[in-house]
Amino acid sequence: MSPKGAQPDFVETVVNVRYAETDQMGIAYYANYLVWFEVGRVAWCKAKGFHYADMEARDKHYLIVVEASCRYKSPAHFEEDIVVRTSLARANDRVIRYRYEIRRKSDNHLLATGETAHVVTDINHKPSRLPDRYRAYFSLPPRV
Amino acid sequence: MSPKGAQPDFVETVVNVRYAETDQMGIAYYANYLVWFEVGRVAWCKAKGFHYADMEARDKHYLIVVEASCRYKSPAHFEEDIVVRTSLARANDRVIRYRYEIRRKSDNHLLATGETAHVVTDINHKPSRLPDRYRAYFSLPPRV
Amino acid sequence: MSPKGAQPDFVETVVNVRYAETDQMGIAYYANYLVWFEVGRVAWCKAKGFHYADMEARDKHYLIVVEASCRYKSPAHFEEDIVVRTSLARANDRVIRYRYEIRRKSDNHLLATGETAHVVTDINHKPSRLPDRYRAYFSLPPRV
Amino acid sequence: MSPKGAQPDFVETVVNVRYAETDQMGIAYYANYLVWFEVGRVAWCKAKGFHYADMEARDKHYLIVVEASCRYKSPAHFEEDIVVRTSLARANDRVIRYRYEIRRKSDNHLLATGETAHVVTDINHKPSRLPDRYRAYFSLPPRV
Repeated sequence: MSPKGAQPDFVETVVNVRYAETDQMGIAYYANYLVWFEVGRVAWCKAKGFHYADMEARDKHYLIVVEASCRYKSPAHFEEDIVVRTSLARANDRVIRYRYEIRRKSDNHLLATGETAHVVTDINHKPSRLPDRYRAYFSLPPRV
Repeated sequence: MSPKGAQPDFVETVVNVRYAETDQMGIAYYANYLVWFEVGRVAWCKAKGFHYADMEARDKHYLIVVEASCRYKSPAHFEEDIVVRTSLARANDRVIRYRYEIRRKSDNHLLATGETAHVVTDINHKPSRLPDRYRAYFSLPPRV
Repeated sequence: MSPKGAQPDFVETVVNVRYAETDQMGIAYYANYLVWFEVGRVAWCKAKGFHYADMEARDKHYLIVVEASCRYKSPAHFEEDIVVRTSLARANDRVIRYRYEIRRKSDNHLLATGETAHVVTDINHKPSRLPDRYRAYFSLPPRV
Repeated sequence: MSPKGAQPDFVETVVNVRYAETDQMGIAYYANYLVWFEVGRVAWCKAKGFHYADMEARDKHYLIVVEASCRYKSPAHFEEDIVVRTSLARANDRVIRYRYEIRRKSDNHLLATGETAHVVTDINHKPSRLPDRYRAYFSLPPRV
């Protein structure tokens, strides 16, 4: 993000692949990567200083997924520790974009990359704006 | 249930086993049977003449699971059609009990049996009573 | 498929949204769309005349997902019937690409679109070629 | 542990409830408790000194679930840390039984209890006996 091409600000969290997440190919089923991205987002929020649960329960605002994509490079296996790395790709007070990497913990091997986009909505799922108290978490300047 | 050992009143619905539901043992993962029981309950409600979705959305009452059990006799495999058979085991206006059988469609082979128990709650998840308009569906006499 | 820009050849299958597939937002959780795409692929294979299960069990070849993406237009709800429409986007004997639409059955409203890409592998998950007997299903000419 | 009927030997592991695991009731969906029991079993094996993954991959033996039950006392919510407590209830070299408790981490409140039973099978899913090298982990005496 810095002018010198520094690494984006990834937040890391570790997930252990569950038996439930494998399929008969003997590897983690592809839809689970989107679940792991969500685990990554929750960890990202916590690392930034808030709980996504509060945005819903207290502030009655939601981040609804509008796009998701994943490129699968190498399979994940039962009982492997994987690192879910989450960074904010872009944000304004209406649309939030995240980027993800999933790596095998033992050797840092890249297993997958992905992106999601989310629109901010109110409790009725209508497009809205990020509540002011969350702006700083998403690196948005205070509103004047 | 009748003195002559008549069959309980099973409602049947067919589910095709999904790849997502298999695990690395090459068979359907055990937690999915509880999902299929839920598919069976939804089919049971429809067969009785109502939608469970309406009980929640319109009548603000919920059937919260308090017990679930399953005995696995024989595995289910990807792409197999299975028949989920659901019957009301017992009901009063506070607690509902269902029984289930899961059979392979091709040869009627029994794959699993199970039970669930549900308490009726209001929208705040507090114990409540079945709304009157649903009593008949559960073979309960009208309230006087 | 026709030279005049005709509709691609979509195979349709209906899925009823399960309670298990909803989340606390009251709508179907986003990862489930990838499960529904898989249900669509299985239906597509069947409509073309083969079972994907056989490609694995008998021919020891696998279609491993390497890319998946989904654009979510409108949410899906519990008990709604949705139509999963699957078409072959592009295929050679090493890589298969599918396209999907998910529509609400009641009014044909578009809920989501998506794509997946799959590489053909052998039983050891090494890149391979589509077994000859499957070429016609994917509109590939016989090998000489 | 003690001769005087002390507490069974529970192994504990912490799980954070995922958004994917909630349903439209706003609580964790009931089938996920069986997934958490599996997470508990994997933690139990690790605590005893082996990996369940190795029993499958190296020793070609499987623990297939034949019974599962759960009593739900109090709901689990998104982002809550829950403690899965797993103990061996009974074991011989053909059948293994586990017991579970799920507690909210913040206040130790009991959310659910459960049991599972597993039969030991070979790679073809035929009943077999626990490989000798695993006997001690299940508190079974060496075979003579």
